[in-house]
Formats: sequence, structure tokens, C-alpha cells
Amino acid sequence: MFTTHNILINPFVFPFMLNAAGREIPEEISGRKLKPYKGLFSFKPKGRYYAKPLKAVFPGETKILPSIKEAIKKTGLQDGMTISFHHHMRNGDAVVNMVVDEIARMGIKHIKLAPTALFPVHEPLIEHIKKGVVSSIEGSLNGPVGEYVSRNGLEEPVMIRSHGGRARAVRSGDLHVDVAFLAASMADEYGNCNGMLGQSAFGAMGFAVADSLHADHVVVITDNLQPYPVSPTTISQIWVDYVVEVESIGDPSGIQTGTMRITKSPSRLTIARNVVKFLDKAGVLEDGFSFQAGAGGISLAVTKFIHEYMKKNGMVGDFVMGGITGFVVDMLEDGTIKKILDGQSFDLKAVESIARNPDHVEVSHIEFGDPHTCGCVVNRQHACFLGATEIDLNFNVNVNTHSDGLLLHGIGGHQDAAASSDVTVVTAPLLRGRVPVIREEVTTISTPGEAVDVVATDAGIAVNPARDDLIEAVKGKMEIVEIEELYKKASRLVGKPESPQCTDDIIAIVEYRDGTVLDVVRKVK
Amino acid sequence: MFTTHNILINPFVFPFMLNAAGREIPEEISGRKLKPYKGLFSFKPKGRYYAKPLKAVFPGETKILPSIKEAIKKTGLQDGMTISFHHHMRNGDAVVNMVVDEIARMGIKHIKLAPTALFPVHEPLIEHIKKGVVSSIEGSLNGPVGEYVSRNGLEEPVMIRSHGGRARAVRSGDLHVDVAFLAASMADEYGNCNGMLGQSAFGAMGFAVADSLHADHVVVITDNLQPYPVSPTTISQIWVDYVVEVESIGDPSGIQTGTMRITKSPSRLTIARNVVKFLDKAGVLEDGFSFQAGAGGISLAVTKFIHEYMKKNGMVGDFVMGGITGFVVDMLEDGTIKKILDGQSFDLKAVESIARNPDHVEVSHIEFGDPHTCGCVVNRQHACFLGATEIDLNFNVNVNTHSDGLLLHGIGGHQDAAASSDVTVVTAPLLRGRVPVIREEVTTISTPGEAVDVVATDAGIAVNPARDDLIEAVKGKMEIVEIEELYKKASRLVGKPESPQCTDDIIAIVEYRDGTVLDVVRKVK
Repeated sequence: MFTTHNILINPFVFPFMLNAAGREIPEEISGRKLKPYKGLFSFKPKGRYYAKPLKAVFPGETKILPSIKEAIKKTGLQDGMTISFHHHMRNGDAVVNMVVDEIARMGIKHIKLAPTALFPVHEPLIEHIKKGVVSSIEGSLNGPVGEYVSRNGLEEPVMIRSHGGRARAVRSGDLHVDVAFLAASMADEYGNCNGMLGQSAFGAMGFAVADSLHADHVVVITDNLQPYPVSPTTISQIWVDYVVEVESIGDPSGIQTGTMRITKSPSRLTIARNVVKFLDKAGVLEDGFSFQAGAGGISLAVTKFIHEYMKKNGMVGDFVMGGITGFVVDMLEDGTIKKILDGQSFDLKAVESIARNPDHVEVSHIEFGDPHTCGCVVNRQHACFLGATEIDLNFNVNVNTHSDGLLLHGIGGHQDAAASSDVTVVTAPLLRGRVPVIREEVTTISTPGEAVDVVATDAGIAVNPARDDLIEAVKGKMEIVEIEELYKKASRLVGKPESPQCTDDIIAIVEYRDGTVLDVVRKVK
Repeated sequence: MFTTHNILINPFVFPFMLNAAGREIPEEISGRKLKPYKGLFSFKPKGRYYAKPLKAVFPGETKILPSIKEAIKKTGLQDGMTISFHHHMRNGDAVVNMVVDEIARMGIKHIKLAPTALFPVHEPLIEHIKKGVVSSIEGSLNGPVGEYVSRNGLEEPVMIRSHGGRARAVRSGDLHVDVAFLAASMADEYGNCNGMLGQSAFGAMGFAVADSLHADHVVVITDNLQPYPVSPTTISQIWVDYVVEVESIGDPSGIQTGTMRITKSPSRLTIARNVVKFLDKAGVLEDGFSFQAGAGGISLAVTKFIHEYMKKNGMVGDFVMGGITGFVVDMLEDGTIKKILDGQSFDLKAVESIARNPDHVEVSHIEFGDPHTCGCVVNRQHACFLGATEIDLNFNVNVNTHSDGLLLHGIGGHQDAAASSDVTVVTAPLLRGRVPVIREEVTTISTPGEAVDVVATDAGIAVNPARDDLIEAVKGKMEIVEIEELYKKASRLVGKPESPQCTDDIIAIVEYRDGTVLDVVRKVK
């Protein structure tokens, strides 16, 4: 379903291909050959996982180093190499800045950053980009660094991946990490570590697992060194080359950002109630019901209302996968669900729970959503509840860019959950201020429309025509609308939105979780 | 320290090399080039870990298969391929026979068996060997299959490895496993599994981890299928291709074999008491003391007496690594040690404990003793207590063959613990019936003498002269003897032992944990 044709926008770029989401993708960019997106599950991988070098640490050898500088030296980090980080501390993280500052002081240049995500707290990286310390990024950008990239671009386009897609990229070697710097809230001097215990506890450490298995060198950075052997052992000593103790890995209160409060808006609460009503009418809610809870304001409300519904109806669910919040912990604690599968803990109640409750199970992001495994957790989800900055008439969803074209968010687990859950529900208000959410075409495709089943807004619920089973199931029980109606209604209220003003320069590539390319993001004028 | 020279024992074998343990090793055998043992930590590996093929299991695909036959078909198992098993069920295991019987019925031939170990219960394999279904083995042999191999040989020599050495071999690709069949006492239909729960619970599942990470195909076989998601998750769904439910994976009472009862012999109890006295006098026993407990009768007594000593003196140890028995569980439960690290549970009290106590931590045999990692647990042990069938004047230890040359035991964790612990104690009676244990030269070197610090017998304790620090530490506090004295005393009592009657044919290779070759075992006449 894709064709190769030349679009003479820019004579310096390679020919473009049309992918299965209808987007034009260059055949090659910055020396990287791109594979066009072909459909949700069209790509079967060939080859083998990336294998790291054999190691040998013998008795008496120490892994504790006195400083980050010493660790950088020992790993042999050089100009042009790739370093990675996990983002479990989110906007409270201190480790990324600490390490990159040190790299800058040591005069190392042209580093590729491969964090799982960056947050506003990482704004100081912009100076390192300007000075050539950091020259490219593969990872999610939330906030200022994303805005900087949108306006300036880097030496090569930023690779934007979903959580599962990033795990896949690291495991396949598409994203080769020379040195992973892994923050841990508890570690021993041999590198056994977790994020569950200690003054900087952040809960699950799922993002770190792929990096520990596949990065050529692994450095654990902790502010809580404890006697050997530390357990629970999220990352085992066998993967850890060096351990560095620092004063603080960050501020765990930064985990809980503004996006993680339940909505107070009456219209958004209505969206959440209607989602539960829809699932009820469609016959999706039954014993064993398992879902992925998001952390956006509406998703949190959906979780709360599902909890109430299941309790009232005496239903018990098998599991909730997350990004886990206290709302899900409540479900576990009163027996509404049997297990929590937690790849990242979204508030301090979740952090406290995972350290204590054996049914609150830590999972990696390989297990969560890597499509190139023997089956990931999202494959088992009956439903998921996701957000959007924009949704279009083909049910494509944008979560990366705003309508002005600025790249301000990562994909999170959006693609992974959407593709694989039985019923994928995207919730959004019809308008954000004067900006319509439902559009003719999204600015950026983060998740392809064929993965999206239901769009729930304060102006009604639309069901993807491909899901005639769902349409049939709710017929006569609940009013649904066509997505075109939602679009028209928004247009009537605020008019047709303006297109973002962009140049032809590609500043980011939105990869689908299987390694093909969904879309590109262009520089803002 | 090795030389290459020709020994014209057999014109059909390759030239022999003398290794650092003083044994003659062929340069090549059955197409396998051998590396001679060069010393405890002389070999630093090059290259990368073995990488298995990329996988993709998409939503809706099932992994549950109706029979072992179907699983064998689906994995594409063919003549000449290698299959592996773990031995956590020990002499109660039903899975090896079940799978190989099925392979035989399907007409598949020339299979290489790569179990972590075989037990008397696996005697039916001898028929499969005779019929060409099984043509070679890499794994520990305990009992009848070992005796058969000693008398008949297989198409190529059996590779005998330590627990850590086998994990290393699987991880490096030296032992390439096509299909791993992993018994689990609890599993879900997506392959998440453990050995801790269910009617056939066997505790830790540490042997299975290397195989799950590196076998090209992984089949979980369980008699206890539970709703998704099963936790604790020793083996994760992401590694498991297929799941088969069977009526029984075996009889867990077979875990606790005869070797795992504390000795009742007064003279052997004296050996155990003297070991503790030695450690006390040598200043080894102090707060934080961490050791590896064996499961032989004397080792169990040592554990019990150390427990009593530490309790009396108000000491608290950091961890005990095992092979774990109820004696170690007692230490955890009364606070004498802080943690148990458990790779295999040796009795039902240990099985019950690991399922319940978060400080009874499951570890893999990669973590236990693979020398080619970023550091294994044995590196952190202050002491270990090991057995022997023979010990020689160079402190070399034999645990594999009896003095008649028959290959009747595996190495277990002997090499791993001995090489890496601060103080390695080998306990044995001076005589077993009329057979002397201390000899001029051991029949087979399972663990090189340079790894052995102390030999404790009922006729006295000898310290390896290389450990003058230990000799100095106990001087004037406790009588020690020279190993030659022990040898002479045994000779006086029962005379010089006869050498085993063997042919020149090599029927097994004893690999050192780093992949070099320590010794060979020859066919018994």
C-alpha cells in the first residue's frame, strides 16, 4: 500500500514514500534508511537481538567508583557515542543533567542522548546542544527541549518512539547504547538495585531493563547505597559494570506532574462517565476485565468510575497495566482487581504500594509493549484509555505536537496500548480553549487511526466504522455519533483551525512501535 | 604454563596439551577445539553473548498447545538439534523422560541432550541412547546414565560443566540450545511461570533462566495452569514461545535425595565442628559473614554449627547462597542472616520459604556463578563448604568420578564456589569403607587445587600452603596437619588404592567454568 515517488520539496532530501497511514516519508535521512509504516501488525522482524560484549568481573574487583567523572572515564565514553537514561524520576530527575554536565566539563562532544524521556527539568540540555556536547537525541521530548528542537533542529532528526517501540529498538540494536546511566533509589556496591526503597524511591524501574540487558556498559547511580545483597533486584549485578553514589538522584515529588490529577471539569467528568457507560452497553465490562489506565485527567476519572462500576456489580478484574496511580492501588486493595502490572509508578501512593504488595508486580517496558517478543502485556488488555492533542477524521491521533507544530510531548505507551488492546478509547474535549481537537487531519500521526476504536468527547462518542461489532453492540442502548459530526460541531464553534507554519526541514521522525515510520515532524517557522 | 606435545596413545586423536592443572588434554576432539585450563582467573572472554532470533507474537495468537508432540512440531525440532531441561525436580522429574519419549515416537534422531543434570529417574534415556534418539549429552550425569556413558561412551564426549560454567556456555553460545523445555509448577497460558507455587512446587528455578534468555525456542511445561498474569514471574512471557499443560511434571518429594540429610556419624560431626573451630580461630567468622551452604551430610552439619556459633556470639550474616535447605531457612527466620540467595531449593522447607519470605530471594545460575558476567554471587562469599569423592596432594578435588573411574556425579556449583569464595573448605572422611579419599592424584580433576584452601577430615585439617595467611592466623590456636600426613595415614590404614582400569577412549570432558578444559574422563574397561 505504499508507493515511491519524488516530491521536489527539497532537492537535498531523498525520494519520499507514502506509508500506510498516508504520510510522506523520506527513503533516507541523515544516513538512516527508513521503512514506511505498513499497518498495525504487518512487520515481522528478521535477525537476532543485539548482543552486548562478554564481561568478566572477578573476585576482589570493585565496581564502586568515587564519581560520575570516574565512571565516564572507565566506560571509555568518547565523542560520538550514545548514552541512555530512564525517566522514572520524571520532572524530579537530577541524573541526566548531572551526567551531561560532567561530560561537558570533560570536553566530550557530539554525544547522542537516548533517554526514555526528557522533561522541563532538563532544559539545561539546550545549552549543551548549542555547544555541541549533545548533537542528537533518540527519545521522548516533553517541554522546553522539544520546543527548542522544533524551532532549531539538531544535527539529525530526533527519533520519537513509544515505550514498547523504544524497548524494541534497544533490543534489536536499532538504538545502540554505549553507556546506560541508571538512577536507582537503592543499590549495593555490586549493582543490584531497585527504585522501590529509599528516600528517592520512584517505584517501578521498567524503562531501565532493556538498557541493562543491551547497553554495552551500565552505570548505576544511587543516593542510597545499602549492604550487599540489595533486593528486590530489578536490575541484577550481572548487568552492572559500575556503581556511583551521589548526594541525590533527584526529587521524587517531581514524579507526580500536573497531568496526573483527576479532572475537576464537569464536562470532562461526563466524558469519563460516558466511556464507562459505553463499555457497559458494549458488553466489555465483565469478570476478568483488564485494562490500561492512563494518567491524564480524564483517564484517571475513567479508572475511578470503572472501579465504582465493577465494585457495584461485584466484578473482579484480572489486572490493570500502567503507568500506575493511587486510583489503581485502591482497586487492588479492595479486591476489585487481582494484580497490578507496573512499568512506571505515577504517584507516591503507587510507589509505596509496589514496595509492599506482592500482587503489585513490577514489569519492564519490554514486557509492557515491545512487539518483538513472545508477546507483551498490551496484547492481553481488554481496553485502554488514552489522551490526544488532536484526533482526525480517520481516527489518527496526535499526542506529540500541538496544533502550532511544536513538539512538546512523547508518545508514551499510546501506540502500544492502542494497537493491541481489544477496545482502544481516546478521550478528549472537543475544544481546548479556542483550539479544536477533532480535525480534518492531525498535525502529526502518533498513533494510526486503525488502532483507535472509540473517540469520546464532551460532544458525543464516535466509533471507528471498522469496529462495526462495537457499533452493533451498543445500537439502541446508547447514542453514538459520527466523527464527522464532532468535527463539524467544533468547526461551527471556533472555525477551521489554521495549519501550523513549518519549513520543509524534518526535525523529528515518529517511529511506529515495530520500527517502521509513521510520520515526520517539521521545523516551525 | 602449558605445552603442546604428542602423546602416541592413540594415533586417531589429535595432539595433547598439558594444562595448568597438569592434565593432558587433546587439542581437538569430535570436531571441537579445546582450550587448556590456564588458571583460576586467567581467561578473559572476547566477543559477545549469544543472541536468539527476534520474535513476534501478536494479539490473538495463542501459545497454549494441546500436547508435547504439538510443541515439538511447532518449534521445528529436527534430527541433530539440541534440547535442554532444568533439574529442579531432581530425582522426581517427569519432564525429561516425557519429552524424549515423545521425540522417539516422532522418529526424530541424533538429539543432543543439554539438561542441567540427569538423575537415576532418567535411566530410561539409556534405551534412547541405544536406539540413536539421543546421541550426545552436555550436562551433569548423576547415576545410571553416567555409568552407561562410562562403560560405553556416546558419539562424542559428554561435556561436564559446573552450574556457573553451564550458564556461561549457554550465554556465550558454546552450548547452543535449539529448544528448552522448562518445567514449571505454576504458569499462565502466556508463559509467565515459577516453581514456587502449585502441587509440584520445587522452589527456585534458577537453572531455567539462562536457557529462557538464550534458547532459540522455549516451551513451558506445567501441571498447574492459572489465570493470567501469574506471579512471581521467574520466567517472563516475553521469552516463552509455547505452553503445554500436562497431568504431572513429577514428584516434588524427589527433590530431597539421600545426600541431603545431616550426617549422624560422630566422626563426620567432628569434621563439621572442626571446620567451625577453624573459621573461628582464623578470624573468618564475624558480623556480615556470608557463605555457601552445601547439601552433603557434613556441609549440612557445618551450616547447623555455624548457625549455633553465630547465634551464641550475636553475629548477623549478610547472606547465605545455596542450594538451600531448611537449615538455612532456620537462620533467616531467627535473624542470624539477613538474606537467602536461592538458585535451587534442596528441600520442601526451602520451597515453602521462598514462596513466602521476600528476604528469601530467587537468583539464577548466571547470578550464582557465571564467571563471564559483571560479577556473580560466589565472588562475594566469605566461605563455602564442599564435598569430594577424592582429594589429592595438590588439593585437586574430584567430585565427578568414583575411584573405579565411573562417572557418577555432576560438578554442581563446586568449581564456582571454590574459585571465588575467600575460604574454600572441602570436607571429607579420610576413608569411605576401605577406599581412601586423600590420594596421590585424583582420578578426575573437577576443581583445581589452587581453588581449595582447606581440607577437613576426621584425621585433621590441612591448609593449602598457598594460603600462608590462614596458616599464620590459626598458628598456636589450633592444630593443623600437612595433606601428606593425611595421605600417609590413609595409606597406612588401607594401603595404596588401585588405579581405575580405563581404556584410552575419552568419554567425557570436564570443562572449567570459564570454558577451558580441566580434565578428561576415559572409558572404563
